[in-house]
Amino acid sequence: LNAKIATLTTDFGLRDPYVSTMKGVMLGICPGAAIVDITHKVKKFDISNGAFVLASAAPFFPPDTVHVVVVDPGVGTERRPIIIETKRGFFVGPDNGVMTLAAEAQGIRSVHEISSRRFMLPHVSNTFHGRDVFAPVAAHLLNGVDLMEFGPPQAEFVKPNLSKVVKTDDSLAGEVLHIDHFGNVITNITLHDLKDSVRQFLSVEVPMREIRLKLSKSYGDVKPQEPIALIGSHNFLEIALNQGSASSILKINVGDKILVRRSISSE
Amino acid sequence: LNAKIATLTTDFGLRDPYVSTMKGVMLGICPGAAIVDITHKVKKFDISNGAFVLASAAPFFPPDTVHVVVVDPGVGTERRPIIIETKRGFFVGPDNGVMTLAAEAQGIRSVHEISSRRFMLPHVSNTFHGRDVFAPVAAHLLNGVDLMEFGPPQAEFVKPNLSKVVKTDDSLAGEVLHIDHFGNVITNITLHDLKDSVRQFLSVEVPMREIRLKLSKSYGDVKPQEPIALIGSHNFLEIALNQGSASSILKINVGDKILVRRSISSE
Amino acid sequence: LNAKIATLTTDFGLRDPYVSTMKGVMLGICPGAAIVDITHKVKKFDISNGAFVLASAAPFFPPDTVHVVVVDPGVGTERRPIIIETKRGFFVGPDNGVMTLAAEAQGIRSVHEISSRRFMLPHVSNTFHGRDVFAPVAAHLLNGVDLMEFGPPQAEFVKPNLSKVVKTDDSLAGEVLHIDHFGNVITNITLHDLKDSVRQFLSVEVPMREIRLKLSKSYGDVKPQEPIALIGSHNFLEIALNQGSASSILKINVGDKILVRRSISSE
Repeated sequence: LNAKIATLTTDFGLRDPYVSTMKGVMLGICPGAAIVDITHKVKKFDISNGAFVLASAAPFFPPDTVHVVVVDPGVGTERRPIIIETKRGFFVGPDNGVMTLAAEAQGIRSVHEISSRRFMLPHVSNTFHGRDVFAPVAAHLLNGVDLMEFGPPQAEFVKPNLSKVVKTDDSLAGEVLHIDHFGNVITNITLHDLKDSVRQFLSVEVPMREIRLKLSKSYGDVKPQEPIALIGSHNFLEIALNQGSASSILKINVGDKILVRRSISSE
Repeated sequence: LNAKIATLTTDFGLRDPYVSTMKGVMLGICPGAAIVDITHKVKKFDISNGAFVLASAAPFFPPDTVHVVVVDPGVGTERRPIIIETKRGFFVGPDNGVMTLAAEAQGIRSVHEISSRRFMLPHVSNTFHGRDVFAPVAAHLLNGVDLMEFGPPQAEFVKPNLSKVVKTDDSLAGEVLHIDHFGNVITNITLHDLKDSVRQFLSVEVPMREIRLKLSKSYGDVKPQEPIALIGSHNFLEIALNQGSASSILKINVGDKILVRRSISSE
Repeated sequence: LNAKIATLTTDFGLRDPYVSTMKGVMLGICPGAAIVDITHKVKKFDISNGAFVLASAAPFFPPDTVHVVVVDPGVGTERRPIIIETKRGFFVGPDNGVMTLAAEAQGIRSVHEISSRRFMLPHVSNTFHGRDVFAPVAAHLLNGVDLMEFGPPQAEFVKPNLSKVVKTDDSLAGEVLHIDHFGNVITNITLHDLKDSVRQFLSVEVPMREIRLKLSKSYGDVKPQEPIALIGSHNFLEIALNQGSASSILKINVGDKILVRRSISSE
């Protein structure tokens, strides 16, 4: 590989030595690697949250990037370590579904189990496969080691249990995927879903209340602290407050159901 | 450019994929770039806070560094994206004043509006110019693209509304710019301001109380938990507690007025 | 040096410009350096916490890595800045014991005082030696400057005051070194300590209560939210909850005494 770019997505936080330990291992094997943190603040053990964040960032990395993911509640149990090869790059992590969303968006070419001990650290702990398995394997991938060397292809792999948008004639029922740092509420409803049922205004039913929102283009289309709906940078329907937190003000949380209806007219 | 160093200063926090997405875009355009995080914990939408942090770090980067700044409450509105060229490097971000303090300290050579779509991502969202405009433009700058290619020079640019120190015969009236991680209180009063009016002791009036402080050289000049004044590493008057938080103990916050008087004698 | 890898371990947090300022200085002197953050969330002024995190990460970095450490409550006082040369790399920071644990594990070759002003920034503040002394010295080390150029060897250096495990015939008395992001409780008791006195079950006395734990291999050996003991990735005895926080549920904190006894039989 020419680029030698790896990314890391974990639920390790930034206080402990875990993330840097993985980087030390990787730089020892592939000295010129550029290692980019996607985030280390995935909600602990939360595979859906990790899947969302990774799928959101991965498309913007160059071809041949190796994405390492360690959101791994089953570390040390029988869940397998895998490499997913896509049309655009590689994903290295546990076979628990956390990488599937991002990988499928790139087109999956093959999935390999990581079974050869040759590319792991000499001592493999049962509690930190990020350091002992995924980091060294990713660095060897960057060095150009062939996929078959890591282990045999496997036909099956785990898919994450993500909720789907349900459409009726006059509504869309979706769910809140993510609340970002600004309090923007990101749903699983896409522009494509919206096209058939919504025009300029929409009515959004969130827990305990219903809000009528203008479908806008940018946060600045309304006054500060006023709510709007827009297709955000993730390409999902987003409920936001200009310069404020929609999540706190409208009391919306991850996992909340969202019902969108076309609103009849402008005010 | 030889160095190919870029920095990022944002209010994005570290939980979401936003920062890494920008890095992915930059590495796709300029594979060898070294990208350094200045901070992603600028107070949300707070242009003054971003301006202070950037101006504090930028002088320590080598020539030709490209500083990318995304503290951008007006994203998607008519505020323009600009490049500021200085005698020492480049600043890329919104024309809202956040880069002006740091850029003026380096000597501004020119300001260009970013208008050419050629150097932006193919789809420019209205909510994430960091990813769609500033990141790719910065990477193209690192690659040596000429300033004129990005857009025309513009004569005017926004200056931040920073408060000035007011001097009288026996006092200096300033303001708290920043409280750091240790609780050190950083004011906008410089060594130069102090020279005329203060010698070894000073009397500082903070909200609700007046404190007499020794002007010291290092935190260790007083006992643990005792307050001192010193010229800090930012070159501003700083009120600190040895191994403690001046901000919490003395109840001083960002924006508080600070009145400094020469204190008559030693104890 | 070929590798040109440096690490940073500080108690600076991630909000202020301090960390990036150090990186700017280093990249100005050694443009190709790969600078890895070990952590910037060492507990403020806490030399033991810094020593533990550094000693945990450092073994996984390649030879010739330069580890820069700034947990420095005595900055600007008479404590000396030093370089510790080991059989594997270098440590640069204050002579307050924070680097000793990690350096001794690698085998110390020499300790040099940093006294030559040539390798410091032109103006050395009394409050930020990370920027003015340690960062430039580390970058010059990466560039291959000889140790003798920085200052004379010194025979003595500060050792941290770490508690030792006390063994009796039927028990081990240790201490909690660290609580990680997941709430895992990491003690100072090693596998070697345990070998003589514990087999499959152990009884752990923590403040106010006694718990009987199975010595397991991975978190997944028990049901979610159930406690276990295991030798963690740090090679220390760890008390953990599968997918939960042992620290909060069992109310164990850093510094707590831990008494381990062999438990008589299985349930």
